[in-house]
Amino acid sequence: MADALCPLCEADGGLLVFGNQFLRIIQANETGFPAFYRVVWRAHVREFSDLSPAERDICMHAVVTVEQVLRSELQPDKINLAALGNAVPHLHWHVIARFADDSHFPSPVWCAPQRPVDDQKVAALAARCADVSRRIAEAMAP
Amino acid sequence: MADALCPLCEADGGLLVFGNQFLRIIQANETGFPAFYRVVWRAHVREFSDLSPAERDICMHAVVTVEQVLRSELQPDKINLAALGNAVPHLHWHVIARFADDSHFPSPVWCAPQRPVDDQKVAALAARCADVSRRIAEAMAP
Repeated sequence: MADALCPLCEADGGLLVFGNQFLRIIQANETGFPAFYRVVWRAHVREFSDLSPAERDICMHAVVTVEQVLRSELQPDKINLAALGNAVPHLHWHVIARFADDSHFPSPVWCAPQRPVDDQKVAALAARCADVSRRIAEAMAP
Repeated sequence: MADALCPLCEADGGLLVFGNQFLRIIQANETGFPAFYRVVWRAHVREFSDLSPAERDICMHAVVTVEQVLRSELQPDKINLAALGNAVPHLHWHVIARFADDSHFPSPVWCAPQRPVDDQKVAALAARCADVSRRIAEAMAP
């Protein structure tokens, strides 16, 4: 089930916010984007369609829960959802709160920046993410 | 429900592959990426979590169906799924078959290219997408 060469099998990949037997939710450590979370499927599967329908429901419930908390806590200009995995082909969903004045908007966060990181704004957002993470954990609790 | 200024309310946004009352599936017109499909929600909603749980199931069923057909027909190196909408905030899912030798791999398709487009390979892939689109429509048919 685990792949010895896979970084998402080897480590959480960020600050652990919630975990159960199916998945974990982490706050990613991405410069300029404190409100960047990931839903990481526990098993080393490559594609979303490798999950059973019931597993897909479990996975998307977590994705939507993170999205809902980000929206209610932070009122972002947009939520970005993505399961790419070109570099790390272990199923993980990016759930990112985007703001019109963030360093990359309207580009995806993986592309070239549009403007410098505003350290003060990022620090203020990072400070609010402790509450975001707590509320995600509460919303996911059985 | 429709927004007069929204391009996805105004037009299909690509080659129509399938449509029902909830959503449509289009083949996007993206240079270098013939196997780039989109699931476009009919109603002008901004975020995935604006859908009801039942609507989210309908939406993700379409996303997974496209993914499954892309995998079985084209054996891509990776599938990329994304709902970004920073530029066009009308819910649409990108479902993209990625190949290790495509112009952008392993970067997301929205970022800077990694190598030139291989016109012959792209043309060969485009030729196969007529079958892909037909099979998507068949798989979605009630």
